[in-house]
Amino acid sequence: MDLISTDTLTDAQIADILDSADRFLEDNRSGRVHDPLTGRIVFNLFYENSTRTLMSFSTAAHRLGASVITLPVEHSSVKKGETIEDTARTLNEMRPDVLVTRHGENGAPARIAAIMDCPVINAGDGTNEHPTQALLDAATIRSRFRRIEGLKVAICGDIVHSRVAHSNTKLLARLGATVRLGGPEKLVPEGAFTVDEAIEGADVVMMLRVQRERLEEELGDAPGEYLRRYGLTAERLARASPGAVVMHPGPMNRGIEMESAIADDPKRSLIALQVEYGVAVRMACLELVLA
Amino acid sequence: MDLISTDTLTDAQIADILDSADRFLEDNRSGRVHDPLTGRIVFNLFYENSTRTLMSFSTAAHRLGASVITLPVEHSSVKKGETIEDTARTLNEMRPDVLVTRHGENGAPARIAAIMDCPVINAGDGTNEHPTQALLDAATIRSRFRRIEGLKVAICGDIVHSRVAHSNTKLLARLGATVRLGGPEKLVPEGAFTVDEAIEGADVVMMLRVQRERLEEELGDAPGEYLRRYGLTAERLARASPGAVVMHPGPMNRGIEMESAIADDPKRSLIALQVEYGVAVRMACLELVLA
Amino acid sequence: MDLISTDTLTDAQIADILDSADRFLEDNRSGRVHDPLTGRIVFNLFYENSTRTLMSFSTAAHRLGASVITLPVEHSSVKKGETIEDTARTLNEMRPDVLVTRHGENGAPARIAAIMDCPVINAGDGTNEHPTQALLDAATIRSRFRRIEGLKVAICGDIVHSRVAHSNTKLLARLGATVRLGGPEKLVPEGAFTVDEAIEGADVVMMLRVQRERLEEELGDAPGEYLRRYGLTAERLARASPGAVVMHPGPMNRGIEMESAIADDPKRSLIALQVEYGVAVRMACLELVLA
Repeated sequence: MDLISTDTLTDAQIADILDSADRFLEDNRSGRVHDPLTGRIVFNLFYENSTRTLMSFSTAAHRLGASVITLPVEHSSVKKGETIEDTARTLNEMRPDVLVTRHGENGAPARIAAIMDCPVINAGDGTNEHPTQALLDAATIRSRFRRIEGLKVAICGDIVHSRVAHSNTKLLARLGATVRLGGPEKLVPEGAFTVDEAIEGADVVMMLRVQRERLEEELGDAPGEYLRRYGLTAERLARASPGAVVMHPGPMNRGIEMESAIADDPKRSLIALQVEYGVAVRMACLELVLA
Repeated sequence: MDLISTDTLTDAQIADILDSADRFLEDNRSGRVHDPLTGRIVFNLFYENSTRTLMSFSTAAHRLGASVITLPVEHSSVKKGETIEDTARTLNEMRPDVLVTRHGENGAPARIAAIMDCPVINAGDGTNEHPTQALLDAATIRSRFRRIEGLKVAICGDIVHSRVAHSNTKLLARLGATVRLGGPEKLVPEGAFTVDEAIEGADVVMMLRVQRERLEEELGDAPGEYLRRYGLTAERLARASPGAVVMHPGPMNRGIEMESAIADDPKRSLIALQVEYGVAVRMACLELVLA
Repeated sequence: MDLISTDTLTDAQIADILDSADRFLEDNRSGRVHDPLTGRIVFNLFYENSTRTLMSFSTAAHRLGASVITLPVEHSSVKKGETIEDTARTLNEMRPDVLVTRHGENGAPARIAAIMDCPVINAGDGTNEHPTQALLDAATIRSRFRRIEGLKVAICGDIVHSRVAHSNTKLLARLGATVRLGGPEKLVPEGAFTVDEAIEGADVVMMLRVQRERLEEELGDAPGEYLRRYGLTAERLARASPGAVVMHPGPMNRGIEMESAIADDPKRSLIALQVEYGVAVRMACLELVLA
């Protein structure tokens, strides 16, 4: 099976991934070694640079005993005009056991999956989907609140360009949370809230990364202006519920999307835990697609 | 033992490689795991970028349980004027179990092999040799026809700059095939055929990649002109024997060396099978040199 | 435990590393396979390019059965202005078993180690420390002389910018050797010797790499001038003790720091053995920090 979107996962599969991730997280902390994927080969085909996600998937694969081969897309025939379909056809004949792929274009992982005989995991495509991010965020939230159902989640920032917002909104709503989107007027869909409105009473405040280029378009060169108008300040966080937690998919622009003190507050911030669940959830996903 | 050219292989060794490759290909399809090279380390030293060959060797090594370390030649002292001999001396002292190398200069892998204590496999040197490509092509042809002896093989395109043509011609002739070379007048050796003549009655038509730069030198900017004059069209393929198959070492320029419909014709095209045998043959070669 | 400097190692730990390295060196020569680190993951975080050290650590890790993940620092958020602390925090949550790091700035590995829960090994920081180089040099010397105590060691070249000189001086003195530093006046600390003086009666002559840029600053474009004035010539080597050996951390500028004939003299030169001990000592260090 492929994992292109969480839409194709059954409720039971989602529950399994979250439960497995909890166990893997504990195992990783205690140094327990797993080897169910010994002899299996994971291909990483990342058309967009992403150290963080690439490292997370590679670590997850190694933790399960698999081998990892990362294509040097920069230097490859891919960059010389080969279509992604032709690249996929070639890779398919090398018989990897799983292919993990990220692409700037919406739908590219689905096109690759249509060709590959092995399972394909979408590590993010354009403004479309980022299913493992949504799953790791769900696992992180559940780990803190022991539930997702009934929680109020605010997702704030550049919503329209964000696959994280898109995938999270769908999955969290499906798991019973109420999701409110907020952000700068030009960067949110119609009917969305202001950041202040979205945060009001929220249990979880998830701030998205804003691209520097969009920042400049939006705000000129004024430093701190994004934080003041749309970012997470202590004042703004006071609107959330008393036990509210904050999240960020990373990498974070400190002092822009969020005040540093909030990001580093061990009581409030789940940012480190998100990274840790990143590996654990991807272990669970690799195991699932190979089962 | 090293594998710099197929010339130094005995007939028995060639037969062993082809037989092993058949078994490995089946094992890879069925997901069987091997680990005879557990604890062994393969160094990849590629002075020329080649995603396809690098991936193929890496996959082959992992499939046998070996570890793989690929030198980042781009960033290395190699690029700062260190001689290949000094690089080889340094790598030798790290005691890899096998070194796989590609270099733009004829004879470089032989010079490296003269220094290394471990086996060295030539992954292509200049216009000289590409022994694993010749072996995988032989394995692919044999898999389709159940023999190589007596077959008529046409190799067409830029012959004079092609190590693939060079290595294939020698090996296929040795295995009993009749090889005819064809291509643009400036890109074939004296006494070669036109493409039409080479293809006449052929059982196998192997088209070579043409470099964009040579294409422009030869034909200016006229798109489709190479295909019309030297490429594999349906019309030209009709000159071959009725059951003829087509091959290409990749990466292919679609619509230049070959019409897309021919490349994608499951009855005619062995291009995907070549990639698959690429991994299987390299597994066999790694096992042989380490035996 | 971390390995940021040899200062924090006990005498017993140093002795253990040197003894283990002797055994690992023999095992690597005879092809013996080890797997005490099976299931363990080593992260390489190299902010400076260093093919040689990176390969050496990677080989050492694989030789012990560990998995290796090398961060592509060039393409990472690291280069987009993320602080090393934020990078370390993220990597820490991925729960590697060891992190090996090199950085151009003095103290960076210590700052990273302060954050990481796992052991951190310093693979060289600025002009500060390079502990595994000092240990491998000590192992190499001991292997030749059966002792370090009482030996006279000359370290010559660009001393002030050299973490190798710094780390070696401390460790060799601690192990009972007498160390004399020599080099061009502008590139040595106050109270240092001329190269001729440093070499006088030495048992070991260790020449350091000189950066091309510093060479030009110092000497203009005159080729061979560095060798004549500060390099290791046969004439200059005659000042050393009769059985003196020569060493170089590599990569060497042939004919600049040392005459080629000396570097290649099997009786005199320990340069190849240094590379071999590089892997063996790093295996010992990995084992120690993970014990």
